[in-house]
Formats: sequence, C-alpha cells, structure tokens
Amino acid sequence: MWEKLVECVPNVSEGRDKAAIEAMAQAIRNVSEVRLLDVQSDPDHNRSVFTFVGTPEGVATAVLELFAAALPRIDLRVHRGEHPRMGAVDVVPFVPVRGVKMQDCVALAHKVGKEIWKKFRVPVYLYAESATRPERQDLSEIRKGEFEGFFEKIKDPNWHPDFGDPVVHPTAGVTAVGAREFLIAFNVNLGTSDLRVAKEIAKAVRFSSGGLRYVKALGMELRERGIVQVSMNLTNFRKTPLPRVLELVRREAQRFGVPVVGTEIVGLIPEEALVQVAEYYLQLEKFSLGQVLERRIEEALRGE
Amino acid sequence: MWEKLVECVPNVSEGRDKAAIEAMAQAIRNVSEVRLLDVQSDPDHNRSVFTFVGTPEGVATAVLELFAAALPRIDLRVHRGEHPRMGAVDVVPFVPVRGVKMQDCVALAHKVGKEIWKKFRVPVYLYAESATRPERQDLSEIRKGEFEGFFEKIKDPNWHPDFGDPVVHPTAGVTAVGAREFLIAFNVNLGTSDLRVAKEIAKAVRFSSGGLRYVKALGMELRERGIVQVSMNLTNFRKTPLPRVLELVRREAQRFGVPVVGTEIVGLIPEEALVQVAEYYLQLEKFSLGQVLERRIEEALRGE
Repeated sequence: MWEKLVECVPNVSEGRDKAAIEAMAQAIRNVSEVRLLDVQSDPDHNRSVFTFVGTPEGVATAVLELFAAALPRIDLRVHRGEHPRMGAVDVVPFVPVRGVKMQDCVALAHKVGKEIWKKFRVPVYLYAESATRPERQDLSEIRKGEFEGFFEKIKDPNWHPDFGDPVVHPTAGVTAVGAREFLIAFNVNLGTSDLRVAKEIAKAVRFSSGGLRYVKALGMELRERGIVQVSMNLTNFRKTPLPRVLELVRREAQRFGVPVVGTEIVGLIPEEALVQVAEYYLQLEKFSLGQVLERRIEEALRGE
Repeated sequence: MWEKLVECVPNVSEGRDKAAIEAMAQAIRNVSEVRLLDVQSDPDHNRSVFTFVGTPEGVATAVLELFAAALPRIDLRVHRGEHPRMGAVDVVPFVPVRGVKMQDCVALAHKVGKEIWKKFRVPVYLYAESATRPERQDLSEIRKGEFEGFFEKIKDPNWHPDFGDPVVHPTAGVTAVGAREFLIAFNVNLGTSDLRVAKEIAKAVRFSSGGLRYVKALGMELRERGIVQVSMNLTNFRKTPLPRVLELVRREAQRFGVPVVGTEIVGLIPEEALVQVAEYYLQLEKFSLGQVLERRIEEALRGE
C-alpha cells in the first residue's frame, strides 16, 4: 500500500462511444502507481466520470495519459449532451485521501495544469481550493458559456486562463483543474409522502439558503416507496460533519412531526468520516485512526 | 495485503526477563507472513501478551516458532506471578479478521494444537469456540489448579487433553488453544462520583448477572477525575453490538439521573464494528464495507 494517496475524479465529454471510453479507462489502468476504482458513463449527458486513486506522481501521470487518450477521440465541435461542458477533459479534481494535505493537492493541480498546457495546448483554469481568484472557486462560474462561448470569453482579461495563452483548443476546449475535499452523497428518507416537507428541510440545512456551510440539499420524491427524501452532498465532511447534518435534519423533521425512517450513503465514504460518526454518537473522549485494526495492520505492512 | 487475515494473541508466562521476551518477539517477527503489532509485558503478572496478525499459514508457523523460543527460556517450576497460569505458553487464541470464518479459526486451532503436541510434547486443551466439551469453553475452568495442580488434574478422564497423552510437560505445563471473536474493550464514563451507580449499571448490563450475552462489566472509580466508569469487554461485537450496549448503559444511567460524560475504546477496534456504529446511529438502510474508500482501494490493490 502506498503511503501517500490522492483520489482523482476526471469528467470527460464522452458517454456514448464505448470503445473510446474503454481506451481512456485503459490509459489510466496502464499507469503502475494508480488504481481505477470506477467508471460511470451517462449517454444522455454524453459524459463519463473516472474514479481512480494513486500516489501523487502516479495520479499526475494518469491525468496526462488520459488527455493523450481523450484528445484524438473527442471533438467538442460535434459533441452534444445534456450536461454543460467546456473541455474534452472537462474537469480534473484532486482529493487528498491519506498522507497528503489539501495544500499538496493544490500544488499537484498547479503542476498538472502547467503540464496540460505544455503538452496538449489546452488552456487550464484552476478552480475550487486551487482557484487564484474568488470567482474561479465555483466550477459552474468558470464553465458559463460552455465550449462554444469560450472563444469570446477567454479574450476577456478577467477570464484569461491560469496556464496557457488565451486561445481555446480547437477541438478540446479548455479544462478546469483543482483540489477539493472528498464529497459524501448522503440521503435521508422521511416517513411522509409530502414533498413540501422534504423541500422545506432541504432549504433549512443547505448553505445556499442559510444552512450549514458545506451542505448542498434537494427535496425529492421516492415514488415507488411513497415517501420523500432529503438528498444531500456534503462537500467538506471535516468541517461540516455528517452526524451534525443528520441531527439537524432530524430536528427540522420533528417540526413537521415526521420521522427519519432511514438513510443511505451513495458510493464511497472515507474511513475518517466513519470514525467521526463513532466519535459523535459514542461520545468518544479520545480516539485515533491508529486504533482501527485494519489501519494498524496496514501500517505494520507498510513499515517493512 | 493478504486476502486472509487471522489475529493471534498468545499469552506467555514471562514478563520480567527482557532478553527472553525479545527473543520470543523476534521469533514471531522472523516469520514472513505475519506482522507483530504489539507486545505487552507485566512484571507483576510475570506474563507477556503478543498481538500479531497474518495469513492462517503464517500465524500457525509463528505459534510453533514462539513455542520453540519460549520452552528453553521458561521453567514453570520456578515461575511466580500474580496471574494464574498453566503453561509456559499459557493460551493461544485465534481471531478471524478478514476473509476467514470462525470455522476456519476452529480448524486452525485443531491443526496447531496437534502440532504443538507432536513437536513439543506439551498437552493441548481446545477452548472457547474450539472447545470439545461445554466445560472447556471457559478458559478459567480449564486453568483451575494451575501448573502445579495439573499433574493430578490431567489424570482425571474428564480432564484428559484434546491432543497428547495425559502427561504434563515437566517445565512447560499444558496449553489452551482456541478460536474466539475479536474482543473490544469499551469504557463508559459517568457524571457522578458515586461508585454504587457504576456497579449497579455494570450488574444490569453484564451477562453473568442477567444482562447482554457477550458483555463483561465492572464498576470502577476514576479518582483523579472524580467520576466513575463502567469498564466493559465486548466478547462478540457481531452478536452484541457496541451501540446497543452503550444505549442500555445510557438508559440504566438515566434511572439514577446520571449522564454519560464520555466513552473510550481501549486498544484496537475492527473496521466492521465502526460500520456497525454508523449503521445503528445513522439508520443506514443498506451499507457494505465495500463502500469504505480505503477498503475499496485495498481491494483494487489486491486485485493485481
């Protein structure tokens, strides 16, 4: 097991051509110091999301290999899909997983962004924690106008890229590269069929309408079960911990006399977030990740 | 990382002679498919506890190497210590950690027990989940009479060993070998200085006086903090889960108007127990260990 571990979740503007998607996946798999964990392709969005982890060096290499595989296979001039996009490789987030700090991922985004311009002549915008200006923190702000609009947008000095000349790549557009925290997808199911309750609770807990800082939330119906759900993204579980979010949802639900009937974590959750949950509900006075048996074993194995 | 993982926690009747303890530790370290995680020696008890993990084969080899190192260094005829003991290597528990079932550890105990007799002429009693009779499940029942008493006890047909002739090894006594579940040491601190409250709660929750099946509990004082504690061993967290134990303690404490002010996990806890805690308090509808990021990464690494 590697001592330093970074997760990378690039989004690519191809969700239909299976051979092209497989070629890109293979480009990642060929890098020795990374492991591809998941590939999700959406034909309607015409977009694929690759999830992989590896050493900082391995992840940097894999992103460049992904570019080398994507650029000859994607032509944004003819790309259509529901999801907004500005690049063949649209966005490349780096997430600290273990033995690396956010600052290391910020530095990694700089290094990889620079290389992308140098090797492929695709202009790069640094976003999220790597952003060089406040208005570039939010990816959707950068992406406004999409590929087609960027030929004008890039000439505006406020929208000159962080790396590269203000000239859009003719077929691959521009790319956003940045560091961000691990994202947890967490849904809370409520014992009511009244969608307004879920919408009210979502509004109460999400950042955009006055709630917790690192929470995005929507009210949704689960028709087949006859219940409703508060569907959330926790964008920084270290600062806005999962148990605090759940307890706030629970408290708001009580105002409507509605019980929480269940919850779900969609996809992956870091061990550290599980430890947070245990610390919160068990009232643990002191606990360290080193007390997790499997973690201790891994450390013993790495210590060879 | 190895696919099958067993923990082994042998207790040896030597807690004073540092050179002897180090020689035994080194015998374990020398086995390639195990990792020694911890050595705890108690001079008053004159006893050492080695914690190591490894493949079933590696762990079996390490136990035999430990015997080879311990037997020339320990003579029970001159051994004195507070802790009861019947063997130079007193007890050898095998704990399933990953990719192995309890039945596999039961089989491992049989295999290793047989080898111990064959190679070292030390009679072996199978205990805990490996026990061949109900009265041999409890280690303290087997150990009654200790080394000195065993020369008579072993002649009783009810106390013939599971492996070997009914003849005590002259310097190394007899050994208990068995499979058991992982043990979690969990303490709950109470906001009172009244020891009776801790004792009453311990009595309510422990198996021996009518409580939960896999709980051992004692009431204790934490003098320097001016509070009391319910100190527990959870001997099977899969069947008597940690959160249920805590909630029962909390409920009993409420009868005395006493709050839980904190808890602690002493030593190691398996990731699976952390997941149990999350499932319980978050009301997770479906969740698998495969959703833990680090676990998924490990699986991807092992899949090479």
